[in-house]
Parts: sequence; C-alpha cells; structure tokens
Amino acid sequence: MAKDVKKVVLAYSGGLDTSVILRWLQTTYGCEVVTFTADLGQGEELEPARRKAEMFGVKQIFVDDLRDTFVRDFVFPMFRANTLYEGQYLLGTSIARPLIAQRQIEIAEEVGADAVAHGATGKGNDQVRFELSYYALKPDVTVIAPWREWDLTSRTKLLAFAEEHQIPIAKDKRGEAPFSVDANLLHSSSEGKILEDPALPPDEIVFQRTISPESAPDVATEIAIDFVGGDPVAINGEALGPAALLAKLNELGRANGIGRLDLVENRFVGMKSRGIYETPGGTILLAAHRNMESITLDREAGHLKDSLMPRYAELIYNGFWFSPERRMLQALIDTSQNSVTGRVRLKLYKGNVIVTGRESPHSLYDTRVVTFEEDGGAYDQVDAQGFIKLNALRLRLGAAVGRKGGTP
Amino acid sequence: MAKDVKKVVLAYSGGLDTSVILRWLQTTYGCEVVTFTADLGQGEELEPARRKAEMFGVKQIFVDDLRDTFVRDFVFPMFRANTLYEGQYLLGTSIARPLIAQRQIEIAEEVGADAVAHGATGKGNDQVRFELSYYALKPDVTVIAPWREWDLTSRTKLLAFAEEHQIPIAKDKRGEAPFSVDANLLHSSSEGKILEDPALPPDEIVFQRTISPESAPDVATEIAIDFVGGDPVAINGEALGPAALLAKLNELGRANGIGRLDLVENRFVGMKSRGIYETPGGTILLAAHRNMESITLDREAGHLKDSLMPRYAELIYNGFWFSPERRMLQALIDTSQNSVTGRVRLKLYKGNVIVTGRESPHSLYDTRVVTFEEDGGAYDQVDAQGFIKLNALRLRLGAAVGRKGGTP
Amino acid sequence: MAKDVKKVVLAYSGGLDTSVILRWLQTTYGCEVVTFTADLGQGEELEPARRKAEMFGVKQIFVDDLRDTFVRDFVFPMFRANTLYEGQYLLGTSIARPLIAQRQIEIAEEVGADAVAHGATGKGNDQVRFELSYYALKPDVTVIAPWREWDLTSRTKLLAFAEEHQIPIAKDKRGEAPFSVDANLLHSSSEGKILEDPALPPDEIVFQRTISPESAPDVATEIAIDFVGGDPVAINGEALGPAALLAKLNELGRANGIGRLDLVENRFVGMKSRGIYETPGGTILLAAHRNMESITLDREAGHLKDSLMPRYAELIYNGFWFSPERRMLQALIDTSQNSVTGRVRLKLYKGNVIVTGRESPHSLYDTRVVTFEEDGGAYDQVDAQGFIKLNALRLRLGAAVGRKGGTP
Amino acid sequence: MAKDVKKVVLAYSGGLDTSVILRWLQTTYGCEVVTFTADLGQGEELEPARRKAEMFGVKQIFVDDLRDTFVRDFVFPMFRANTLYEGQYLLGTSIARPLIAQRQIEIAEEVGADAVAHGATGKGNDQVRFELSYYALKPDVTVIAPWREWDLTSRTKLLAFAEEHQIPIAKDKRGEAPFSVDANLLHSSSEGKILEDPALPPDEIVFQRTISPESAPDVATEIAIDFVGGDPVAINGEALGPAALLAKLNELGRANGIGRLDLVENRFVGMKSRGIYETPGGTILLAAHRNMESITLDREAGHLKDSLMPRYAELIYNGFWFSPERRMLQALIDTSQNSVTGRVRLKLYKGNVIVTGRESPHSLYDTRVVTFEEDGGAYDQVDAQGFIKLNALRLRLGAAVGRKGGTP
Repeated sequence: MAKDVKKVVLAYSGGLDTSVILRWLQTTYGCEVVTFTADLGQGEELEPARRKAEMFGVKQIFVDDLRDTFVRDFVFPMFRANTLYEGQYLLGTSIARPLIAQRQIEIAEEVGADAVAHGATGKGNDQVRFELSYYALKPDVTVIAPWREWDLTSRTKLLAFAEEHQIPIAKDKRGEAPFSVDANLLHSSSEGKILEDPALPPDEIVFQRTISPESAPDVATEIAIDFVGGDPVAINGEALGPAALLAKLNELGRANGIGRLDLVENRFVGMKSRGIYETPGGTILLAAHRNMESITLDREAGHLKDSLMPRYAELIYNGFWFSPERRMLQALIDTSQNSVTGRVRLKLYKGNVIVTGRESPHSLYDTRVVTFEEDGGAYDQVDAQGFIKLNALRLRLGAAVGRKGGTP
Repeated sequence: MAKDVKKVVLAYSGGLDTSVILRWLQTTYGCEVVTFTADLGQGEELEPARRKAEMFGVKQIFVDDLRDTFVRDFVFPMFRANTLYEGQYLLGTSIARPLIAQRQIEIAEEVGADAVAHGATGKGNDQVRFELSYYALKPDVTVIAPWREWDLTSRTKLLAFAEEHQIPIAKDKRGEAPFSVDANLLHSSSEGKILEDPALPPDEIVFQRTISPESAPDVATEIAIDFVGGDPVAINGEALGPAALLAKLNELGRANGIGRLDLVENRFVGMKSRGIYETPGGTILLAAHRNMESITLDREAGHLKDSLMPRYAELIYNGFWFSPERRMLQALIDTSQNSVTGRVRLKLYKGNVIVTGRESPHSLYDTRVVTFEEDGGAYDQVDAQGFIKLNALRLRLGAAVGRKGGTP
Repeated sequence: MAKDVKKVVLAYSGGLDTSVILRWLQTTYGCEVVTFTADLGQGEELEPARRKAEMFGVKQIFVDDLRDTFVRDFVFPMFRANTLYEGQYLLGTSIARPLIAQRQIEIAEEVGADAVAHGATGKGNDQVRFELSYYALKPDVTVIAPWREWDLTSRTKLLAFAEEHQIPIAKDKRGEAPFSVDANLLHSSSEGKILEDPALPPDEIVFQRTISPESAPDVATEIAIDFVGGDPVAINGEALGPAALLAKLNELGRANGIGRLDLVENRFVGMKSRGIYETPGGTILLAAHRNMESITLDREAGHLKDSLMPRYAELIYNGFWFSPERRMLQALIDTSQNSVTGRVRLKLYKGNVIVTGRESPHSLYDTRVVTFEEDGGAYDQVDAQGFIKLNALRLRLGAAVGRKGGTP
Repeated sequence: MAKDVKKVVLAYSGGLDTSVILRWLQTTYGCEVVTFTADLGQGEELEPARRKAEMFGVKQIFVDDLRDTFVRDFVFPMFRANTLYEGQYLLGTSIARPLIAQRQIEIAEEVGADAVAHGATGKGNDQVRFELSYYALKPDVTVIAPWREWDLTSRTKLLAFAEEHQIPIAKDKRGEAPFSVDANLLHSSSEGKILEDPALPPDEIVFQRTISPESAPDVATEIAIDFVGGDPVAINGEALGPAALLAKLNELGRANGIGRLDLVENRFVGMKSRGIYETPGGTILLAAHRNMESITLDREAGHLKDSLMPRYAELIYNGFWFSPERRMLQALIDTSQNSVTGRVRLKLYKGNVIVTGRESPHSLYDTRVVTFEEDGGAYDQVDAQGFIKLNALRLRLGAAVGRKGGTP
C-alpha cells in the first residue's frame, strides 16, 4: 500500500474531503504534500484553500486562475465538434479533468515531486480521467488515490479522522450532503444519494446554476454571437475573451432557464449512473455553433464530423484527452473550422434556444441555386435525372436479379 | 422526351399542381393515367381528389389510408435509432416518400402500368427519394418527372395551361403561395420563397401544426409513455395503435409549443436549403425513446447505434430506404431493441420536453453498484486501479519514448 | 486470495502446466475439480488427458469434440465479415476462446460448479477472452486464474511443485520450450522467448502447420470452392461439413506454403507483442470469400461491412464475442450474405492464393452494362454528366467563395 | 451541345484517341486547343506527343515531368493510410487523376482557357475523377467530355474520322486492342473486352509490368526500406527521391512476380467491373509501411486509421481528392505519422512479400513489458484482474437481468 513517496502534489479544493486527504497523505505516506488549487470558474473563493493549506504546514502552495486556459484550450476545441456524450451530455466535468491533471504534473516537474494525488472515488469516471492524464504526461509518476486505498469507508470514520487530526469541520458538513456537486465555468453537476433513483425527478433545490423554465421571464432575450474559425469571439457585438464570453453566456442561460439535463449515462467503469447537469452557456453555444456551421460548412465535412463525434465524445468522457487518437480527431475537426465565421442570432425563452438568423461572409448558402424562382441557369434540373439514374443503377441491377427493394 | 408509355400511376394529391400534371400526362404521353392518393395523416380530405380524378376521366383511382402502415413500418423503425439528420432534423418528409413509392409500384403491378409519375421538382430531394424507391422495387419501370421535363417553367405558364385544359383553379391558388408545404402524420415542413433568407426568422404565419412556446399554457402537462421492444405502445396507460399514438403525441406537442425547428440543411442534390419543420409528436417521442434506452440499453450497444446513426439518417434523407445498406443497419438497430421496454414520464412545458422518470422491468441501472453508500461488495473499488493501469499502459509506453501527453 | 470455492471446472489440456494447475486448485482451494478437455482440432489426442485427470482423482471428466461447432458457429460467421485484426491477423486464437468458455460454463451449470479456471497468463489476451465470456454467460461465477494468483513465478518453482505433487514431467518438458504454441483447426500460433525480437525473422523450426513457400511444389494446385449464403460448403464439388472442409483447406494450404504471418500486434491489455501465425486454410478461405462477394454483394453493402470490419475484429480480438455489440454487428453482417452463393476457382502456388474465376447464379456483374462495346441502351452515358454535375455542386459552390480544391 | 468555348486545355497522350479528340475539338467547337501531356511514369516517350500536337497546329503545348510530384504529394500521402479500395485495390489509376486535372487547371489559368477536355469514357470512374477535380479547382470552367458528346460511337466511325482528318493511324491501331490499358509509376491496369468475363483468368499476355510468380527466380531477394515520418526515403540504405524510390521498388517487385491483382470492383457510376492491376512497388511499399507502423504506431491511433481507411479509399476512388472531407481525413492520418520512422527488412520471393525484421528509434515495442520472462515489475499481472472485472461489469449486469451471453 504505502509506496515509497517523497513529495506529492495534491489537487486540493480546501473542502473537508481533500483536507482529510491532505492530512492522511502526511500521516500515511510521511511525505511532503504540495497543494494545487485551480480556479476553473467553479465560483468559490480560493484564498481560504491557501490559508487552510498553510495551516496544515504545506510549504509549496499553488493557486492558479486557469479559467481562460480552460475555455480556450479545452472547452472551445470540444465545441468545435458539437460534442455530446450519449446524444445529450455536454461533458462539463470530463473536459475539466485533463487540465487539472496537466497543471498538477507541471507542478510536480517544477517542485520535483514523485507523486500526485486526487480526491476522486473508486466508482467514478474522474479517477480514470485524472490518472490517464497523469500517466500520459509523466509515465513514471506514482499516483495516490486515497479513496481506493484508505479505510475511511464511512462518513463517520471520515469525521472521526478529521476530529482526531484537528481538521476544522464546517457545521453544514457534519451531516452528509444530500447529493454531491462538481462545478466549473462550463457546468455544474449533481449526483448521488437523493438523486439515485432514475424514476424520480430531481428536487428543485438540486439546481444551482439555472432557474427553472417556469421561473424564467415571460419575455424572450435576443442575442447575437459572433464566431471566427469555429470559436465564439463576441456577444452582441462586444468582443470577449474565452472565459468572459462563457461567463456571459452562463448568465444569459441561467436567467432564461436554459441548460438543465437529467441523464442516466453509462460510466467508463461499467455501470449506469444518474446525473443532473446544468450547462446554461454551453447549451446556447452548441446551438449557436451548429447554426454557424449550417451555412458555412460543406455537407460532407459536416457529415464526417457528425459520424466521428460520438467517438470523440467517448474519448473525452473516458479520460483520453491526452491520447494520440484524440489528437488525430482534433486535427480532423480543426481542419474543418477555417470558414466557420459569421454571426448567429438567437432568442432565449424559458428553456428554449431558438435561432432567429445566421449570416456569414463565407456562406455556402446560395439563394440563386436553391430558389424555387427562376435561377438564371445556376442549376440545371436535367442533371438530376442522370444523378438519380446512376445512383439507382446498382439497386436496379439488384432488383433485376430478384433482390427487389434492396433486399441483400 | 415523350417515351412510349401506355399506363402511368401518378401520385396525386388533388391539388392544382398534380392536376396539371395529370392533364399534361394525358396530353403529352397520350397514355392512360391511374391516380393514387394516400392518407399519410396530412390532414386533408381525400374524397375531393377522387372526384377530381373522375372529372379528368381517370378510370382507375386508388385512395388509401396508409397511416398505420406509415407509423408502424417506417416512423417507428426510424425512431428506434434516435435518428436525426445533421443533428437536428427528424426526417418527416424523407420517411414518407418510400411508402408512397412502394404503394405506387404495387398499384403499377396490379393495374399493369409501365410507368410512374410524381410531382416533385428537379431541385429537391423528393425526386431522388421517389425514384430510387421506384427503381429498387421495379427496375424496368419508366419514371416521369414532369417538373424536369415540361416547359411550364413559370407560374403564369402553369396557370395558362390549367385554364386551357379546364382545370379548376381555387381562388387562393391564383397568386403564388408565399412558401411551400409538405405534411404527414409525423411532421409539417415549410420552405421556399419568403423563407429563403436564413438570416431572417420565419413569420409566425408559417407554423401550421404547433403554437409557439410563448402561446403555450403556463402550466406543464405531465404524460407517461410505455414502450415495448423499442416502440411506443401506450400513452398515460392507454394502449394505442401506431397512428393513433402519434396523433395523440402531436396533439400534446402542439398544445405545448413543442417541435419547431428552423434549419439550414444540406440536400443530396448538392445545395444548402432552409426549412421550417414542425414535429410535435416526434420531438416528444425522440426524448422518450432516448430515456427509455438510457436505463435498458447496454453501453456499447448504445454507442454502436449512436456511431451509425448519422449514416442511417443520411440514407433515409438521401432516399435509400430500399437499399441493402439500410436493411443491414436496420437489422443491427432492431437487434438492440429487445429489452427497450418500460415507462418514461415526461413534462411538456412551453417548448420543453423534460423527463421526470424512467422505469423498466429490464433496467440495467443497478442502485447497488452505483451507490455512494456501502454497496455490500457489489463493486470492488480496487478493480479500478488495474483497469486504469492497463488502459494507461500504451500511453505510458508512448510517453516513455518521448511522446508525452499522447503526442502521436 | 483463496476465495471459498466448492467445485471448479478447469479448462484442461493434459499438459504439464494445466496439470500443475489442477493439483494447485485441489491443494489451495481444497475444492473438487472437474476437468474439461475440448477437441478444437489442435491435433492432439485427448484420451491421455482423461487418463491423467483420473490419476489426479478427478471424478467428473468432460472430453468433447467441438470441431464442427467451432467452425460452423464461430469461424464461418467471422469469415462472413472478411475479418482481419490490424489488417492482417485472422484471429485464430481469439475465435476459439469464447467456445471453450461457453462449454465450460455449460458444464459448470450441469455439475453445479461455482467456479471456473483457466491456464492463461496475466499478460495476455486470452485471460480477458475467457473471463469476459464466463461473466457474460454466468455473472455470479467465481473465476480462478492461477497464473495471476500463485507464487509459481518461475519454471524452477513450477517444476518443484510438480515433483512435490507427483505430477509426471515429460522429458522434453524439463527444459523450457523455446517459444509457446496455441493451435486449433483454424490456426497455429507461436510466440515468446526466441520470437520476442521483432527485428529478427522466425527460425524455420517455429512453423508447425505449413511448409515454406520455397519448399512448396513448383506446380500450382487448382481448386474450386462453393459457397451458399456466405459460407463454404464444398471443395472441388465435394460437399463437406464445416470441420472437414476447413481441414481440407488446411491440407491444401500447408502443401502450398500458404498462410504464414509474422506480426507485431497490439494487445488489449496494452502492450505490443509479436506472434507467428499459420492459417493455411483460413488464408485460402478469406481470398475465396472476398471473391465470392465481389460478384454477388451490392457495393454499399460491401462498403458498409468493410467500414465496420475493424470494429468487429477488435471485438473478437478483445474477447467480446458474447456482447450485445458483437451480436448487433453479426446481425448486420449476416443480413448481407443471403446471396453470397456460387463458385470461386483458385490457384495455390508457393504462398500465393490466386483467383482464376468466380461465378454465381446471383451475380450482380452485368456484362451488358459494363461493356466497352455497344450495350444496347443498358446504360446511358449522358446520365454521367448529371451525376457528376450534382456531385460537384457543393465543391463548386465552395470554390466560388474562395475554397478552391476542397479547402475547408 | 457545342457550348461557346474559346480555348480548351486537353489532356493529350499523343495516341490515336486523344488525337481524334484534338481534331474533333478544333472542328466541333472551333476553338483553340492547348495540349497538356504529363509524364507520370507511364513509360512512354512524350516528345512524339509534342510533335503530333505541332502537326495539328497547336500553339501552346505543355509537356511536364510530374513524376516526383505524383509520388511525393499523391502516392505517399495515400500510402500513409495503408489504403486499399474494397480490401484489395491499391488505387493506381484513381490517385493519378487529380494531379492531371490540377495541372490542367493551372495551365488553363495560365493560358486563359475557359474549358478543359479529357479522353475518358462515359461509363468509367475517370470522367468523374477528372471533372470533380476540375470543378473543385475552377468552378466556372467548361468541361468537354467528347466520349459523352460525339457520335463516334464505334471503332469504324472513329477510324473514318481519323482518316478524313489526316490523323495518322499506327498499323497496330487499325484493329481494336483486345483490352485497354492505363499506366503510371504506381501501376498498370488492364480492362475491357477479353477481360470482361470474371469467370475466366486473364491471359498471360495481359501483364505488362510483372513477370508471373512462376517465372520469378527461385532465390529470394532481400531488401531494407527506411521510413521517415511515414514515407519511405531509402532502399538498402541508399537515399532516393520519391519517383526514383518507387521506380526501384517496381523493378524489385516486377522481378519477383509481385503485385498482380485480378479484381471485380464496384464503380462509382454504379456497375461492377473487372480489372487486372499490376502494382509491384506499391505492394511492397504497403507491406513495408504496415510493418513500420506495427512497432511505431500507438494501438488506438492505428485502429482509428484502420476504421477510416475504407472511407478514405472510397473518396480517392470516387474522385474526391480535392474535397474538404479528404483533406480532413488527411490531416488525421498525417498527424499519426510523426514517429513512423525506422527500417523494415523484407524478403521478396515469387509473389510473396515476407517481412524479416523491423526496427525503429521510436519503437513502442517494449521487450520488458511483453516478455514471458521475469519483467522486473514492468507490468503487474494483478492489474489484469481489475481490468477484466470492470470491462465485464456491464456484461454481468446484463446477464443478471436475463440477458445471458450478451443478448441485447
């Protein structure tokens, strides 16, 4: 169990659980602990985490604002593919893990640590996402996953350990949370305990980042999003950096009851689980990006992307961001986005994202060709006959030898 | 041009355009015309079509109610795949064409006709869908596509021909319609003319089958849908035949502002076009089916279906329903649906379809395994370490020879 | 370690290693051992295995001839897909494992055993193939994998255990084999030890089932294979059962130096390994089946199969024969084979399999259409213009807005 | 028919057929003809083509050596994907067409021509490949395809036209060739007439570029090929430019009876056709590249490429080299080839290409990990158990609710 470890970089939130882990690492491994706390837009202050770490005698404390990196280098590339896991999930948790792991490994290299540790449990996907990323970036690193190792297997034992080691316990942490939450600039997820029965709807208290469609205003909000090369760059004409832009979309989405998802999904570790996701800005962004592509992307380029999207989503969900196959797919996807530039107008109304217009200097939509009116020779209807005849040829040859209607 | 044709079966709606075609076939080809009018739930009376055909001297007139066939043998199989063309379109027009063509060919065999004719234009997808189906079912059939052949290239010429041949012109058909409409039990589509600019939202008058989310009631409607083997069989506990069930869902969707789509899509014939689709019942059905699958379908079964869905959708959109590859994919899809049985509860509210529960006697969701609580040994967290280690092995070997982070 | 086990069914070859396992199970688990020895055409006598098992006090001994089952229900279905793992490997070992596991589980049910055991090591794919099959067929079974559990980690320790427990050691088993072998009716594989360096060619002594191309006769052997519905049924006009047919092809292949493969492949457990495979009959069968399909299978049916073959091969290689996704793909593949009926003629010559003719009552090859000669109107060359024009339309629209040459 | 054309660039071989086309263009269209003759390694002298063109009064004559461009920018990129159409065809003709078209369009821009013409027939794939490339590069170009337009529908009429227009007819061109040939540095293809019956083997006289396996030497030739970044750069240690390298491989293949293929394939225009292909160097190169990848490419990178290869091959075969989707796939493929560097050794013997060794500074093959011997902790066999258990979990959960053996 207790491998020989000298210095470990811990992904540290400052909360009770990772504080227990911090102390547990110190006592069990007898090693120096370096803490790393990241701002990914989860909406919590980070300074308390620093102070707590100091209190535990941690000498090297890293607190980093990674919000722009997160959105620019992880969220936006993922949205270029219109990525949805199992047709619905915008991968808000999955896409944050590789960045945390990446920075953790950078810190490990910087401070000469031989190990990294995280607070994910042994039943979830996050352990896989963290650890695959660690190993891909630093193959000889020692990984410590306390939840798979220790004997603090109940809340009672955890609290006892905390008390024994002078770890402050907030009053509201005495009892168990009725469900567990993960949050960052892209989304907020809730799962476990009171949410475990998929036959029951979530209680309204579960939602943290959106008001309900019912509570949203009776008047729609109209917005315009500008894209350059597949990524959003401005809202209502105002240029915004990646994190600021996503934050603005979150605000707009929240206010209009947009982005709730109640999902039963399939975990990489083999079981089904149920999650409640709130992705207000991401839901708007997906609709906007799809519509931007609808006039700027070639048909076969789009269909090729669509056919590979499920695989790409699966890779991110399963934790393979830092893999050759994800990089290869990204190269394919990115190649398609050069001309995905222009403006999409949307109406946000009580949970709905309704497109009201798309325009682009690179538009492939050609009114002359498509029109029901006279087109001045832009399209020769006679060509359609040859097109159909040759597309039908193999079906006719098949039918002629008795395989009617495409019977194989 | 005027091939030698003795008897032609015309897909006849009774409207002005197909009435002109009817007469044009008689005069141009000098052949006998058999009319075929199908009820696919488009919501029009068919008897006027019969009377008009009689008026034109047609001797063999077929008027068929194909609604249950349509939903059972075409719509439901398509929904088993959660089919969306280009991520959004529920294929309401595409899925109706092969059935019309199939019945047309059956009639041709029955009455000994050597030709079939349709009223689709030379720029659209429907001509392809009709004709590929014709050829796949009767490879030696002669296909007449008047819109590609005749010189009635303007509204004025068409009306002149109608007048010259005593074809009655309804008053509201004198002027040109501001857009063109197709409808059946699954959807209503509108396109062309005033809808051609994708930068502008559709006018409210375009919508025929749904009220707007804004006009929908302030109180949600709660429903339950039962599935057996992948297909819906009952609403709120009431067993319904295929067509009745879809009609009921349409009613529920309409009343709650559900199922509008404003889309720029890529046609098989090569250009982009813009359509406004209303698929109230189908939108509800898709959400329900996905949720039913979420607890009953194996992960890899679902992912395999998801990865092939874009191809399957493309085949239907392009008109290849009667092809070996569509049949092969259908076999794969159908094989997965055995256990997709149970009940899904939904809340319909102002454009939103919100799942509120799913349950199934065949559920793969196992609370014992997934729970954050003690699971009594249902899942050994230690297994996760080996799982991660072996999944990481190739990434570590790569990183060890200098390919850090999955660099290929 | 030593879980509570009452009765275990061991996949038993009668060789030294599985004999040690047999005894080790008896002594370590103190449980009753049932042996199961299968004839899959590996070319060894099975009666010695029975006698040895008796000697160890085994009361329930199963010795089954599974050759026809193996070829009919596993090998032939796989060949319907022209299956090659990583473009080259005919999966001879992979396809045998699920059948062994299936029979083992049947026996476990029959004799009321609560566990199964196999002799595969902890680094290979076979452990995965066995165990995934076990679990898929009997989810509560206890699996014992001695090579992952015991401390007989060296040859010396293994031999010491054997001596201590009166296990007879054949003289030629005293030293270590220079490489390890697996064999069945489809193939023979060799790997390990002297074969581990992929920079060196295998020594000629490695080959067991084929003579070298150099040693093969200077005169070609001509054969004809008949197919019905995708499976071979006769050689040179003589109808043969599945196993007899494959045995005959093996004989023909061996004599002509056909079917050797020197491969570095990627294991499911994460590392690369090197294997020498001999699949004489399978190599002939693949060539024959492909050629049979070439005149009987629709283009898109074939392309769809081709595009899914790598996934199907991966599933079999990784051990997922008994999985929903393999069954779904099989349904798709099988649907395509109805008309794959006819005769293929081949010439076998010094490692080459050369097709010399294919004919079929269901042939889609139509001389009238393809001919360079006058075709009497079977194909209208003018159709090609429309076909090209519409296929080019999107590329032209792209080029017209500055995306020349298909630049995205 | 005779569109208004001022100046046309003709792909001109100097042979009888394209000479007739040259004159026919001059007389039918009354336009200036510019000839373009390319050396793609077809093995014919080009100066006679120049002289003939002069004889016909052509003022602008282009004769270009494109061999290195062909191999470097078209053949090698294609081989990076291990491309095979329908599992067998190395696409020798298909890959040459886009280059010819590209240069033709460049010349058209250069000389101010408004049209291009080619000598491909209306039944084949080449017309599609030429024209899709033309349109993708110059969307407003006029394309003239004489074989689809003129009335020289028989050999007699063609010869009569030639005589009438003083086109010299070589004696051996009086009669019709018994089959038609296309050749370039990658391959030689033969089809038509005496080759049309797929039930009969080709006569030995058909083969132009290879001796038969039977005629090849009794002693094998051993060679080594070096790769850098996925492309071959040297043979037997001698660095060679792209064209010289392929020419050398052709020589080696020819001498050893390597690279013959007798194929029934599916044309894009809808029918099956039969071709005899000789690709001696390409066959060696494919085997070498695959083996180079086998030790340098990550497993999932390789599987991803394999799964997309059929689509990539189809695009090239169908003529979509200059399309967004081909460029996207190329980006994915190229991204994977960085580390495909090293040496492969092969033995060429009577039609066989047998690998005898592979080595690379970037090898992912790790003897420590794979070995059957003690591995010093490089791989922990216990990890396999967790790996299997979690991979099995969904199958076990399925079986537990009655879906035994992966029944969906």
